[in-house]
Amino acid sequence: MAPAGSAACVFCRIVAGEAPAYRVHEDGAVVAFLDQRPLFPGHTLVVPRTHLETLTDLPEESVGPYFTAVRRLTGAVERAMEADGSLVAGNNRVSQSVPHLHTHVVPRRRKDGLRGFFWPRGHYADETEARRIAARIRAQL
Amino acid sequence: MAPAGSAACVFCRIVAGEAPAYRVHEDGAVVAFLDQRPLFPGHTLVVPRTHLETLTDLPEESVGPYFTAVRRLTGAVERAMEADGSLVAGNNRVSQSVPHLHTHVVPRRRKDGLRGFFWPRGHYADETEARRIAARIRAQL
Ligand SMILES: [Zn+2]
Ligand SMILES: [Zn+2]
Repeated sequence: MAPAGSAACVFCRIVAGEAPAYRVHEDGAVVAFLDQRPLFPGHTLVVPRTHLETLTDLPEESVGPYFTAVRRLTGAVERAMEADGSLVAGNNRVSQSVPHLHTHVVPRRRKDGLRGFFWPRGHYADETEARRIAARIRAQL
Repeated sequence: MAPAGSAACVFCRIVAGEAPAYRVHEDGAVVAFLDQRPLFPGHTLVVPRTHLETLTDLPEESVGPYFTAVRRLTGAVERAMEADGSLVAGNNRVSQSVPHLHTHVVPRRRKDGLRGFFWPRGHYADETEARRIAARIRAQL
């Protein structure tokens, strides 16, 4: 994991103003800017100012300020792009292109071709399997 | 929009204990349970106890408690399923199957076949377009 403000982390460099980005918002907790490779125009990334790798690394006291900004950006992106809705998503480690926590806010339109979640969905084999998995998760809380 | 606790809302019925679900967590703010049609085993949904349709409907004072639970579930799902990472995502209106705010917490493995975000990504035509869109979003904040 890169240290806070590492020159090796492109999002830390954007936060510091050392790498270019189209900023849409900043406050004491976050910086938000356009994704360079948008799923759709207006696709925005919200990152904490502090270098943290994933959601589980976000300190409890930072959860409210970070997601308050995400919620606010969600409304702004939807209105600005006259969207029908949005996808708000983060990848932790797998499919995470930059190891600095970021939430994607993606404007959506009906029939925009994004299948979303959207991939083949499964079933639990039986009640025993579902019960066993629920118990495993509860045991990790 | 269904009223709070509406009998028409399946997630309100799960919160109230009137519809079956494999619960993994509950606290004063949220109930979390297994998605019946998991992308992968352990795929969990986190819903606020109160009927709200989308993220932008979540009152500011509820953002911290709700996402604190999401963050906690993310760690628990990753550990319970011995995952390499996770996808944490919510659909607002478009691709939203149940109109009661919910966040998907999906355990991921490298090479699990989920392309994630993962769909064709675009580019802005030029700097002017990107600047114009960033300005539109800022104007809606
Ligand atoms: Zn960083
Ligand atoms: Zn409901």
